[in-house]
Amino acid sequence: MNQIVDLAIGIDIGGTSTKVAIVSNDGQIIERQHLPMNGFDNEWDYFQALFSTIRFLINKQRSDKILGIGIGSPSCIPERGIIKGAANLPFSEEVEIVQILETEFNLPTYLIKDGNAAALGEGKFGAAKNMSNFIVLTLGTGLGCGIVANNQIIRGHFGQAGELGHATVKENGRNCACGRKGCLETYVSATGIKRTVFQLLADFDIKNELQDITYSQLTAKRISEAALNGNFIAQKAFTYTAQFLGKKMANLVTLFEPEAFFLAGGLAEAGDLLFQPTMETMENRLMRFYKGKIKILPSALKTNEAAILGPASLVWKNQHSKRSSINRFHLGMVE
Amino acid sequence: MNQIVDLAIGIDIGGTSTKVAIVSNDGQIIERQHLPMNGFDNEWDYFQALFSTIRFLINKQRSDKILGIGIGSPSCIPERGIIKGAANLPFSEEVEIVQILETEFNLPTYLIKDGNAAALGEGKFGAAKNMSNFIVLTLGTGLGCGIVANNQIIRGHFGQAGELGHATVKENGRNCACGRKGCLETYVSATGIKRTVFQLLADFDIKNELQDITYSQLTAKRISEAALNGNFIAQKAFTYTAQFLGKKMANLVTLFEPEAFFLAGGLAEAGDLLFQPTMETMENRLMRFYKGKIKILPSALKTNEAAILGPASLVWKNQHSKRSSINRFHLGMVE
Repeated sequence: MNQIVDLAIGIDIGGTSTKVAIVSNDGQIIERQHLPMNGFDNEWDYFQALFSTIRFLINKQRSDKILGIGIGSPSCIPERGIIKGAANLPFSEEVEIVQILETEFNLPTYLIKDGNAAALGEGKFGAAKNMSNFIVLTLGTGLGCGIVANNQIIRGHFGQAGELGHATVKENGRNCACGRKGCLETYVSATGIKRTVFQLLADFDIKNELQDITYSQLTAKRISEAALNGNFIAQKAFTYTAQFLGKKMANLVTLFEPEAFFLAGGLAEAGDLLFQPTMETMENRLMRFYKGKIKILPSALKTNEAAILGPASLVWKNQHSKRSSINRFHLGMVE
Repeated sequence: MNQIVDLAIGIDIGGTSTKVAIVSNDGQIIERQHLPMNGFDNEWDYFQALFSTIRFLINKQRSDKILGIGIGSPSCIPERGIIKGAANLPFSEEVEIVQILETEFNLPTYLIKDGNAAALGEGKFGAAKNMSNFIVLTLGTGLGCGIVANNQIIRGHFGQAGELGHATVKENGRNCACGRKGCLETYVSATGIKRTVFQLLADFDIKNELQDITYSQLTAKRISEAALNGNFIAQKAFTYTAQFLGKKMANLVTLFEPEAFFLAGGLAEAGDLLFQPTMETMENRLMRFYKGKIKILPSALKTNEAAILGPASLVWKNQHSKRSSINRFHLGMVE
């Protein structure tokens, strides 16, 4: 019989998929499932699928104790346990996700903004373990951001601080799902670079392979591959993206003085294609004092793991404060 | 005989003058002196004048106990006790100001960045007493900034965070003393609005009173007066300034979610001339969720008092940690 350990469920809700995992309290992902976000007409369809996924994972951990659920999500208000006005999710205006999951599973459930989830995961289990000031940017469907200053996540007066994706970076720029124009995430995200490729395809009427892919089919991964194969449009798209990102990061340095930026999410998997021109742009823009001092790093955790481990860590952190855990499968003491 | 109270010396170093005051531990300014910054060829001339000013103030407090000195300054590295590369001060590259004052007065001396000094003062004695998230902007010769998040001043990895004045806001914009171009403080500060007036005088060759004032003579106060008298150039200069400021503030809201912004310093004395168009620009740019929720306030303290009270408060805060105070004028116990 295996040793019995405390487990938590970590959930990372994103525009493309929801990742659900069983996590042990030393930051190991025991088992995970992906739930693609397409095909749901409304949140109830989505929640039925999410319930099944969670139940499937719980049922496989027969002899262990599940202490609770931690959720990372965009557009959420953690204090109220709701997701609100999420442009990239198949949800109505306001979804009481914490209450929905607590009712279904009878487990204490915690909610945190996606960017903060990634920052928490990187800080507890990743490369930011010994850093007191760092910023995590998750470049996926949108741009998530978590800012740690003085060793604390900046939460703000309304609990939703760190919405870097909606900093305006271009006057009358691209239309954003938030209803405004020129937000950073319309340029810097997996979706943003796709928009840039289509803008460049319109700009440069020169024969190249990207002309044979639809907007719906194009992915950040496909753009990376094209860039590595020397595709002019794809390479230019990375430079364009990196300029927006590097300039914004230089400004963030004067505000926060992070020891490092972490770039995570689908677009960050492009590696040097993105990191190198971003670093170059940032360095060019930094005040003299900061030149050569600020790191840009990939997450030290596997793809998206920080965004799952962060929310899961809330379960242990709050273990004794919210209400006692429910031991569904084992009645012995394991603590 | 008066009751003997604990006093501290608060010093606010700015591009135009150094303010020195004797402060009591309930945040009252007992007595103050201004030391204009012009006429000093180097830092030693300056320090001789500063020593005299401090000594003059100390000598008038015969029966009270001076516990220490707190200094607020631009371009400083508090941890090292130095002012470094201060473009607006008559100093060499690096000045060990803490050691210089401790040697001269044998009093424990503390240093804090000017913007953080104002934030500390406003938070301890002003209108931000009950706020955990707020931002103070001091619009003087340059633009100072202090950011309080989660009830703490954000200091950053190198101790100089919050340099909002050097956020780049315009590509190839105005030359900044920091060696770069387009920094916010070249537009939004007492100097910035003066530069704007001269740009507008060049742009609009129409007869008006500001054409009879030299660049050296023009002040933010003079521009305010002209604007109140209906001067077109002056009014346009305020709108132009407020647009840069309001846009930047809207972006800061997404990052920090401050409960309020405080505008202080010489330019802020223009009141509604600055506040009203700044609020309008900010509100237009805010994400829907924040509209109508973020305050823009003047300092609740008298002109520049926050920037003196903040550093002075460091003396009491550190009273028992650095080294015991020196009672120069009274040997009895007063604590």
